[in-house]
Amino acid sequence: MTTQANNGNAGHPLAPFSHYFSLNNGLSDTAPSLKRYLSKMAGMYADDAAFRERLQREDTLVYEFHELGVPEAAGNLAFGTSIVYPGKIGDEYFMTKGHFHTILDTSEVYYCIGGKGLMLMENPEGEWDVREFSPGTAVYVPGRYAHRSINTGHEPLITFYVFRADAGHDYGTIETKGFRKIVVEQDGRPAAIDNPKWK
Amino acid sequence: MTTQANNGNAGHPLAPFSHYFSLNNGLSDTAPSLKRYLSKMAGMYADDAAFRERLQREDTLVYEFHELGVPEAAGNLAFGTSIVYPGKIGDEYFMTKGHFHTILDTSEVYYCIGGKGLMLMENPEGEWDVREFSPGTAVYVPGRYAHRSINTGHEPLITFYVFRADAGHDYGTIETKGFRKIVVEQDGRPAAIDNPKWK
Ligand SMILES: [Mn+2]
Ligand SMILES: [Mn+2]
Repeated sequence: MTTQANNGNAGHPLAPFSHYFSLNNGLSDTAPSLKRYLSKMAGMYADDAAFRERLQREDTLVYEFHELGVPEAAGNLAFGTSIVYPGKIGDEYFMTKGHFHTILDTSEVYYCIGGKGLMLMENPEGEWDVREFSPGTAVYVPGRYAHRSINTGHEPLITFYVFRADAGHDYGTIETKGFRKIVVEQDGRPAAIDNPKWK
Repeated sequence: MTTQANNGNAGHPLAPFSHYFSLNNGLSDTAPSLKRYLSKMAGMYADDAAFRERLQREDTLVYEFHELGVPEAAGNLAFGTSIVYPGKIGDEYFMTKGHFHTILDTSEVYYCIGGKGLMLMENPEGEWDVREFSPGTAVYVPGRYAHRSINTGHEPLITFYVFRADAGHDYGTIETKGFRKIVVEQDGRPAAIDNPKWK
């Protein structure tokens, strides 16, 4: 009953399709996943020494997510699961790179099916917010808000996400400037503090 | 940490918000649900005598779903859970009314978090498809496809859905014409057969 979205038919109507994503670990046996290892996140964590030390020991898998190749049309939706693994670099929790959408006013919905964490968001006007993830929580990321998932727990943080297929991804702005806030462990609990590297 | 979407701010950017939807029963303590009782589905099941008989005994809750009032803009997304309860009218399984989107080429994603069932789909060109729901299955309803959730199991069928907030709902076409196919129990299993009432 599972068929693949076909990236070759942009401009033609899609046919119905389905994919399985485990409610236990977020993984799929039919949908490919993109894996983000620590080495791809140089400069994104506040503690460069802790980053280098960890990377020397191992190039850890920090998170993975699915990319189904749904044609990038405004009527289509892209979806899949995101899995952020537990861990820290110094005091800072494992997280996704984070991005703006290229079509800035397009939103995204995340439904948490496992684990514990936060969605960190900020818009170009400097407003920021953080929302808690726990199983059953749906977080609405409005248009204009860059977004980053952060695992503050001890199990994988698993979310099911949906966004407009033509939204596009701007990773560069965050790679260059960072988020205004970072989330670190303080007295055993997550705290959003000013990002010392923010430009 | 939970805030309501505010329907009054259409045209203004939304702020981030979150809602809880139980992974066990799909219900929310913060998001209102719309309840569809059997009496609102007159004429939609094939067996009118069985429908009348059931309604005389009780006006059963067939399904419910959430409507958060996200402003209807093309950059926004509407979302929530849908819960179709188990049951049959004659041989025909409990189901949603089903609808086209008013903006016909907008799609919808359904992620099944509990129960067992089918998504029945058809487009104006007469193409139809049916996809199985079981926990962990994501079904993509492409643009142009009317869609109806059907519970073929013995527990509530629970799905988390996301669609473009401006998609709009055309219930009238299905209320008038019906779907080309209906799903009934035959030899203890679901079967999609021609709808005797289809116009
Ligand atoms: Mn995004
Ligand atoms: Mn719909």
